[in-house]
This record gives sequence, C-alpha cells and structure tokens, in this order.
Amino acid sequence: MSLITLDDIASAAERIAPHVTRTPLLPALSLGEQLGCQLFVKCELFQRTGSFKIRGGFNKGLSLSDEERSRGIIAFSAGNHAMSVAHIGATLGVPVVVCMPAHSVQFKVDAVRAMGAELDLVDGDLVARAMARMESGGFTLMHPFDDPAMIAGHATCGQEIIEDLPEVDTVLVPTGGGGLISGVAAAIKLHRPATRVIGIEPAGANVVSLSCAAGHPVTLASPKSLADGLAAPIAGSLNLIHIEAFVDDLVTVPEESIGPAWLEMVNTTKLAVEPAAAVGVAAIRTGAISVDPDETVCMIASGGNADFARLADFS
Amino acid sequence: MSLITLDDIASAAERIAPHVTRTPLLPALSLGEQLGCQLFVKCELFQRTGSFKIRGGFNKGLSLSDEERSRGIIAFSAGNHAMSVAHIGATLGVPVVVCMPAHSVQFKVDAVRAMGAELDLVDGDLVARAMARMESGGFTLMHPFDDPAMIAGHATCGQEIIEDLPEVDTVLVPTGGGGLISGVAAAIKLHRPATRVIGIEPAGANVVSLSCAAGHPVTLASPKSLADGLAAPIAGSLNLIHIEAFVDDLVTVPEESIGPAWLEMVNTTKLAVEPAAAVGVAAIRTGAISVDPDETVCMIASGGNADFARLADFS
Repeated sequence: MSLITLDDIASAAERIAPHVTRTPLLPALSLGEQLGCQLFVKCELFQRTGSFKIRGGFNKGLSLSDEERSRGIIAFSAGNHAMSVAHIGATLGVPVVVCMPAHSVQFKVDAVRAMGAELDLVDGDLVARAMARMESGGFTLMHPFDDPAMIAGHATCGQEIIEDLPEVDTVLVPTGGGGLISGVAAAIKLHRPATRVIGIEPAGANVVSLSCAAGHPVTLASPKSLADGLAAPIAGSLNLIHIEAFVDDLVTVPEESIGPAWLEMVNTTKLAVEPAAAVGVAAIRTGAISVDPDETVCMIASGGNADFARLADFS
Repeated sequence: MSLITLDDIASAAERIAPHVTRTPLLPALSLGEQLGCQLFVKCELFQRTGSFKIRGGFNKGLSLSDEERSRGIIAFSAGNHAMSVAHIGATLGVPVVVCMPAHSVQFKVDAVRAMGAELDLVDGDLVARAMARMESGGFTLMHPFDDPAMIAGHATCGQEIIEDLPEVDTVLVPTGGGGLISGVAAAIKLHRPATRVIGIEPAGANVVSLSCAAGHPVTLASPKSLADGLAAPIAGSLNLIHIEAFVDDLVTVPEESIGPAWLEMVNTTKLAVEPAAAVGVAAIRTGAISVDPDETVCMIASGGNADFARLADFS
C-alpha cells in the first residue's frame, strides 16, 4: 500500500469535475469572532446528496472497468455514503445495492430508495452482510473510505481549500472512518507542509484514534454519537497510513460538547450543517484545540443531512 | 417624492462596501430540479446580523450629519431591523434606542441588548411609541423602509444579482413593508427591464398588496405570519411608488404553505434560512407563480434568524 500523489489528486479532480460542485469557501465572520480566529468554512454540505462523499464516490465509480460496472456496485453505510452511492449509480447507470442498518434515519432510507438503489436493511453485522452479498452476488464493492480512489477523490476538497485560501494556517477535519481526512491531509501537506491539519473525532465514535494508538485498525462494537455521520465501526488501513504520514494531530471531543457546538454553528454561520460538521467548533470550545486571533482556520462542513428539529434539545 | 436612480445605488454601494458582505449567489441544483427551474439563491442570510437589513441601514447611518448622529438613532422593529440598527450604532459609535414589541423573540431581544442598544419593550402601538420618543428625546429616526437611503442601500442587493447573473429571467423577493423589494426592483429594472421582478407576501401580513389595491398606504391591525420577518403593520409611501414603477407582480401565499416550503428549502439547499426567505418556494409550490424548466430564477434568501426547532412542526 502506498500514499496518493499530487498526480492522483489532479487526475481525480479532472475525472469528477462534471459531476461534483466546486463548493464555496465562505468567511464566517461572526463565528470566527466568537471563537477567536479568522474562520472560513468549506461548504461540502452544498455538494449533491448533501455531503463530500460523492467526491471519492465518483472518482471510484468513474475508475471502474466496464466489467466491474456490469456486475453492479454494493456498499454499506448508515447514511451519507449510502445516498452518495445511490446517486452515483443513478447518474452512471450502474445498478446499486446498499446495505443500511435497520434503524437508519428514515429520510436517508427514503432518499436511497427514491434514487433507485436496492435497499438491504440489516439487523446485525452490516459489513459482514455486504461482504457476503458481494461474494455471492459478484458485486463490485465501493468501500466508504479504505480505497485509494476514494482518498484521491476526497483529496480534491483539500486541494480546493489550498487554491482558495493559500495562506490557511489550520484545517479542521471531522473524522469518522478516516476517508475525508486522509485525502484532505494529503492534498494540504503535499501542497503546503506548513499548514496544520487536525482531525476531530467524537468521544462516542473514535475508531481512528484507537486504531492509531493500537498501531492497526480496530473495530468499535457500537459507535454512537450525535455526530452520526462520523459513527464508523472500523478504520481503514490505507487511511491510517495517510493519517500517520500527513496529519498533525487527532483530538477527541466529549459527546456533550457536540450539541451546543452544532447549535452555535447553525445560528451564527446560517449554514444548515449536520452535527458532524460542528466538531471543530466543539474542539475549540472545549480547549481540545487552541487558536489565535490572527490564525486563519478552515473548518470543513462535511455535510448537511440532519433532523434540525433536534436543535431544540440544545437551546 | 421621487424614484431612486442608478447613481444613488452606485453611491450607496461605495458607501456601505466597508461594512457589508458581498453575499454569494449560489446555485440550488436540487431545489431547482424539484421546482422545475434553473434556481439560484442570493444569500443575504450570511450578511452581518443575519439579514439584508444592514445594507439600507448603513447607507442611512453613513449619510447622517454629525448633528443627526449626535442626537442618537431611534428605530422600531420586531426583529431583523432591530438587530441591524443595534449593530450599526455599535459600529459607528452612535447611541441607539430600539422599540421592540414586548412579545419579541427572546434571542433577538438578547442580541440587541448585547450590542449595547437601549431597549424599549412596548406593549401597545410600537410606531406611536417610537414617534413619541423621537419627538421628546430629539432622536434621529431610522425608518425600517420608508426612506430613500434605505431603498438605495437595499438596491445594492439587486445590483449584485445583475452583476453575478446578468441573464436572470425572474427575481422573487420576500415582501414585508416594501423596503427590500422597492430597492431590488429599482436596481434590476434600471439595469435590465426584461427581468421579471415579483414580490411575495404571506397571507397573514399582506400590507403592500392591500396598500396597492387601496392606492395609498394602509395599516394592518395585527399582522401575523410564520414568516415573521415580513409581518409589517404598515407599508411605506416611497416604497409603494417604487413598487408601482418597477415591480411586475405581487402575489400572496397561504399561511399553511409557508412551513412546508421552509422545511423543503432548508433540507434541499442546506441554507439555514428563516421562514420569510421561503415564500418564493411556497409561491411556486402553490401555483401562485409559474416557472419553466429553462427559466433562470433567483430567490433572495432575505435572512436566517429563526428558531429551527420549529421545523419539527412541518416534518
């Protein structure tokens, strides 16, 4: 296994350009003043299907051979990756099966079904079910993160940050299974080694920190977080290698800090982000990360798929 | 009374530039597909204090003489104008008194107080109280809309739409007392007469339609709408003249259409808009306005000051 290169990222950017939005990087004056830094938000929530996931997904889907496409794609996910794969299958005309937990959020289940994917609602081990169906049905797996094409696709988000804000001092990346941060960190560090890249995990779903500490990928029996977009049960081997190589720091935020951070971020930026996108705010608020008034900080608003009525719980 | 000119708008743009955000005009692919048009959103919710109001407010504040400033500013508003005037006073170092209804939303009251304005919570006639205090205290009135400086300031929003999207076919403008639409319509029509400009009022607060029908400004005893940002009890005389001259159509949407439109707009655009900003969606959904698949439509997301927990009422 080897690290992705700037060439891989440039190829991914060209490949996916017709299908993804070049999302804006917006200044967040009020929230920046409140947090004590020069803050910008990379708006991946505006991406089709409401998250960054289609960057890697389209890069993978467009890299498949005709034979691999003809076998159909299988994926496992509780949410954003599920919607992304369903959208990619519908766009490219490839049949898709998505294994989702039986207790998934209803609007995400409905969205996947509406895009024409076959839905497999699973009560037990999601990954095992997807692997079994892959082998029995001959499907092509679209792994949510542990894949060089996925990493290079997500890296285009980091490349756009450097293009739009070359002087960025610090990039804060919500971290689940490690897909987004491995790509973004590679792009940032290969272009500008002086920029700090920090991954942020919720305490209830910190599989990347645990894996880094163990020196190999570990499994979380039941990750659970308000930041449900980050609740991955496994970390990717290839992602860990990229994180080792390119990430300056990984921090964990307490679960109880995420709700208030989510409310603060929505109310001050006026971006309808999901809780996962607010872990950077939680990290600064809890002191897990320190920032300076002159420091240019970019938070990646990874997605916007949430039940906003739940904001009431933190008002 | 006379109409504002392109020179007035250009002067306003130059005057307020150091203090206002040049807000982005974002494509709204998913919502546009759902509504059947090529949709863009002018993001005034990203403006300081969360609404377009500071455009006109700074243009007025910066046009005051030293003598007028020294007397202090008085304003009346239930929300967005109140926060805007408090921010402008704090920025320019001018004392501000804001008369707000006693039952105003708490976070808006808190925001006004936090910016250092003197708060006058009024149980009865808000306008009468402000006028009485203006006369007894010698304050300078910052009217929320019936003022040429306010109209020219708000017109800069329309000018930016034309600069960013010169081919725009239709602009949909949330309409309360007539401030935003009178300015935006002037800017659009003076630059590009072929563009349709349509104002949209909620059924519970349609004082501009009623005033246009009556041929003079009328008063609504108790305007009440989920789109609380549009619940003006009076229309402005100068605003009506601009609306007569520049607006193609005024439509009213039923109150019960606004909540579902708000939910749809937040969920698909991922913009944390307030209900007032969603009346354009309601107008298309209810058939009050027809759009074509090839039509380039711009909705002005006038503000983002809302209690998002209320989205639960429409899920």
